[in-house]
Amino acid sequence: MTNIGYTSEEPIAAIATALAPGALGIVRASGKGSIELVSKVFSRPKALIEAKGNTIVYGWIVDNSVNDPKNNKIDEVLVSVFRAPKSFTGEDMVEISCHGGINVIQSIYSILLANGFRQAERGEFTFRAYINGKTDLTRAEAVKEIIDSKTDIGRSHAAGRLAGNLYETIDGIKKLIVDTLAAIEVEIEYPEDEETIADSFDSKNLEKAKEVLSDLASSWKSEKIYQDGARVVLAGRTNAGKSSLFNALLKEDRAIVSDIEGTTRDFIESLIDFDGIPARLFDTAGLRETSDLVEAVGVERTKDLSSDADLILYLVDSKIGIDEHDSLFIRKYLEDSKIKSLDKAPLLIVWNKTDSADAKNTGSDDFSEITQVKISAKTGKGIAELCAAIKSKLSRGIATDRTQTGLGSERQKIAVEEALESVGHALSLTKEYALDAVVQDLEDCLDALGNVTGDVTPDDILGSIFSHFCVGK
Amino acid sequence: MTNIGYTSEEPIAAIATALAPGALGIVRASGKGSIELVSKVFSRPKALIEAKGNTIVYGWIVDNSVNDPKNNKIDEVLVSVFRAPKSFTGEDMVEISCHGGINVIQSIYSILLANGFRQAERGEFTFRAYINGKTDLTRAEAVKEIIDSKTDIGRSHAAGRLAGNLYETIDGIKKLIVDTLAAIEVEIEYPEDEETIADSFDSKNLEKAKEVLSDLASSWKSEKIYQDGARVVLAGRTNAGKSSLFNALLKEDRAIVSDIEGTTRDFIESLIDFDGIPARLFDTAGLRETSDLVEAVGVERTKDLSSDADLILYLVDSKIGIDEHDSLFIRKYLEDSKIKSLDKAPLLIVWNKTDSADAKNTGSDDFSEITQVKISAKTGKGIAELCAAIKSKLSRGIATDRTQTGLGSERQKIAVEEALESVGHALSLTKEYALDAVVQDLEDCLDALGNVTGDVTPDDILGSIFSHFCVGK
Repeated sequence: MTNIGYTSEEPIAAIATALAPGALGIVRASGKGSIELVSKVFSRPKALIEAKGNTIVYGWIVDNSVNDPKNNKIDEVLVSVFRAPKSFTGEDMVEISCHGGINVIQSIYSILLANGFRQAERGEFTFRAYINGKTDLTRAEAVKEIIDSKTDIGRSHAAGRLAGNLYETIDGIKKLIVDTLAAIEVEIEYPEDEETIADSFDSKNLEKAKEVLSDLASSWKSEKIYQDGARVVLAGRTNAGKSSLFNALLKEDRAIVSDIEGTTRDFIESLIDFDGIPARLFDTAGLRETSDLVEAVGVERTKDLSSDADLILYLVDSKIGIDEHDSLFIRKYLEDSKIKSLDKAPLLIVWNKTDSADAKNTGSDDFSEITQVKISAKTGKGIAELCAAIKSKLSRGIATDRTQTGLGSERQKIAVEEALESVGHALSLTKEYALDAVVQDLEDCLDALGNVTGDVTPDDILGSIFSHFCVGK
Repeated sequence: MTNIGYTSEEPIAAIATALAPGALGIVRASGKGSIELVSKVFSRPKALIEAKGNTIVYGWIVDNSVNDPKNNKIDEVLVSVFRAPKSFTGEDMVEISCHGGINVIQSIYSILLANGFRQAERGEFTFRAYINGKTDLTRAEAVKEIIDSKTDIGRSHAAGRLAGNLYETIDGIKKLIVDTLAAIEVEIEYPEDEETIADSFDSKNLEKAKEVLSDLASSWKSEKIYQDGARVVLAGRTNAGKSSLFNALLKEDRAIVSDIEGTTRDFIESLIDFDGIPARLFDTAGLRETSDLVEAVGVERTKDLSSDADLILYLVDSKIGIDEHDSLFIRKYLEDSKIKSLDKAPLLIVWNKTDSADAKNTGSDDFSEITQVKISAKTGKGIAELCAAIKSKLSRGIATDRTQTGLGSERQKIAVEEALESVGHALSLTKEYALDAVVQDLEDCLDALGNVTGDVTPDDILGSIFSHFCVGK
């Protein structure tokens, strides 16, 4: 949103369905007078203008710049009419369901732009819903989350937020804080009472608030993986079979969502669903390796990619075994990732080519605490076991429960952490009888919580939130 | 349609929007009991069941296999309800407008399949509309044509057929034939009258029918180009600059529809809009040319591609001029295409690199009757003029009038040609007083016309028509 401060009901339009051929497409419009404006390019203007809210009117979209009624038809459509305030945005709205051809959809969109509508900004429909009090920020953000969701669990968590479970959780915390503030008010009014603060109000309220906030804050790591996918990097020396394994894993996956498009970097990336956990699989085999410095360059580049990986699949050629380069990489990686015990290392050693007659080596005592899996990328042997091992590694610390109430965005996490810090600070102060400071902390906490739901969110932050939406939402 | 004979109202469902991320997506369903079936997976079943036709109901799609109401929400949706016979298919119908995420759309579709719906076959919604008398075949086919349309004129012609202009034209011809048959009936009943057949009925009716049928039949060439795009092939010797010109043309075109995907052949193909005329531009520069036989192989492969081209752009390097290989190709091509005069040749000679200091040659007297255009693919000079020349060549014999009533499919063309032949034959027989034979011809003609609109279309042909539709339409 470039002009987020903008709150008028100026009529806006957007193509709402993906612009690719399909049976149906939708062009949507919102704002004051939008029903009347659409009626100007509709074959049955009166029917549209007189239509009640939540009804559907059949007719043709026509080019009103052409006078000949035999020559002005664009498409046969169904128009859904919504009347303020009973609509997604809270304004008068129209959704034109047309045939799903690219030219048709674009033609209808163009005719709206030529008849009083302007192009909607990214997320502007949802922004209007928020401004008009139809939704709070947690639910507004959930709209984007549910569209972007990659797996059933991720979608289920986003649907929970869309239904308001995060809003209600935050609201519950607010109540605990407000109750505490009220109790402190009593304490300040009647300071002669010799009881401690801890006695005069139930500090359990703050303890409870702290606990819930802490759970929410730590949920983000898991939710982020559902949104973005865990980063799984295929590493190993040239000819260990990285590309073969990459392809074997893609083939095994029955729920591939899509290849990641538009990457110009030096590796291949695909989205894979490991039994409900979405992962971005990186194949470093595409690295341009110069003949002289093969290993050095390979190790360096893989290291770059590995530095923020959630899991490394380190591939070893069973015909060769773990050589000094492999050892060097694995030790360096484990050292850098600062884990306490090797069995928790975000790394699997994968022995490839175990079907080969020359396979002389299929395990290493040097790394006996690290999970090692034997496979043949060529025959597919062991791939299912490898997938299970990957899922097991990735699911540590990830909520696989569908009902989980978690955070939906980095922004929410920052605000929740602020609230958590304020509550923690307030709790420590209650022991020191610093009543005014406690009040300040709890008010800061309420501000932070208001930021999560959008009660007190500044305009620049709103702009940033909605600019990540797609146009038409 | 695998089971085209099937005419029951069995509930069917399909994803109707393109399965790519967007703001909104639609899952549609049709058939007996479809509203009640959807209510089983809807948060407000009563509201849905009681909804009137052409109204919209707000609620959530829920997973009814999960008992926990906190854990069964799939997406917040708007459900459009249509009641038989007032719907696209003529049956009870439901359209679920959900958030446009791939996982969401697929989840809603899956839950319908688990609750009494089966997957719709390709074109089955439109097939049901046809079977239930909501549309004839020309309008049904226009649904597919409008979705596939690539330019405004093409879409406008398809919209005309969707609105029934082809149906009405065919109907008009039928009336002429039926009137004639009635007149002949009189002649057969009262043969004693010595007037000729030509006197007893107005043979102008048949002449008129023949004329309209002839126009329709010849319209297909033009309509086919609007549907498929004219084939424009870039030819010329290695290093003439074919790829540069290909890219320069793509850049010039402000309405590129898409690259043609999935081609595994040895050339690059892109769809370009030459001022309303869609064209498939083929670059033969991708040909694998072996070092020994460069020219021979190049010429051969280009010839293969050129054989069914609507236009050849023959590129000549101005620094070299037209050499014997160029002459050979051009002469052979003109000979093969059997045109009567060179100025009508479906070929443009394009002089490239005219900006170069070494450009010694920018025209050829040998081919003075062929249009020659001077360009620089590198600087873009002359590209606009080339586009105009291409459009001028392509638009010969193509209806650029938006109101044109033309045919929409090869199938219609075959039937119209049959009708045309029957009428022609009948007309020749009227001069020979062969009344019974004329009647037979005119009845054949009516059969063929019934085939166009679908009154008498055999099942196997119906199957073939609808199997080319997308699922969900």
